[in-house]
Amino acid sequence: MSKQEIGMPGSDGTVQGCCPGLLTAPLDEDQAVELARVFKALGDPVRLRLLSMIASRAGGEVCVCDLTPAFDLSQPTVSHHLKLLREAGLIASERRGTWVYYRLLPEMTDRLAGILTRPAGAPVGSPAGSQA
Amino acid sequence: MSKQEIGMPGSDGTVQGCCPGLLTAPLDEDQAVELARVFKALGDPVRLRLLSMIASRAGGEVCVCDLTPAFDLSQPTVSHHLKLLREAGLIASERRGTWVYYRLLPEMTDRLAGILTRPAGAPVGSPAGSQA
Repeated sequence: MSKQEIGMPGSDGTVQGCCPGLLTAPLDEDQAVELARVFKALGDPVRLRLLSMIASRAGGEVCVCDLTPAFDLSQPTVSHHLKLLREAGLIASERRGTWVYYRLLPEMTDRLAGILTRPAGAPVGSPAGSQA
Repeated sequence: MSKQEIGMPGSDGTVQGCCPGLLTAPLDEDQAVELARVFKALGDPVRLRLLSMIASRAGGEVCVCDLTPAFDLSQPTVSHHLKLLREAGLIASERRGTWVYYRLLPEMTDRLAGILTRPAGAPVGSPAGSQA
């Protein structure tokens, strides 16, 4: 997946103040296809819970053996959801011995946050709370 | 949809520095179901292009008659995608005369941006660019 097309995080790990976003200009088709794949990966409650468990873990890494017991799902099902998060560029995995360990790729969540952030000083649409 | 559960934007329209986010603590099941519905609405290229067209329009409002010609899709299909964005709380609509007009609800995109933003001074997971 090309991270250049929509907004690659800068060296400080943020995209704020940089790069075209979802709210500043119409996306072209290729950008929309690429970005939709990431949002689709987030569009499932099990995957969101897995991502939040991985992202919030002290130490930054979680064994799949610690993730599966939180769900009333088989390990292959949990592993399938993890695979979709990995293919979307949201997490990375590493096998060590018996188990696979997962960690957040904060570049991608930074990128999504930047894409969804309104440009400073340029309100988008109606002001928050207004009635049209 | 209850906006209280995950992180309601403050009076300044942002959720930064406030409220549990996706990256700071494991989501519970109800939070995950609610949030997944919004991300699922974003998980489609046509809906992302529609949202970006609406959000980036000067004046903050777009007639459905100006959206449909950008797509090789029927007006009912475009209207269906707009309905899903509206049901997710991302846009609002108003009928005036013959046409329906759409505008961004920036509270929701602010909320998503906040949820995806790493808390200041508390790096999540591995640092950007690190090799595990």
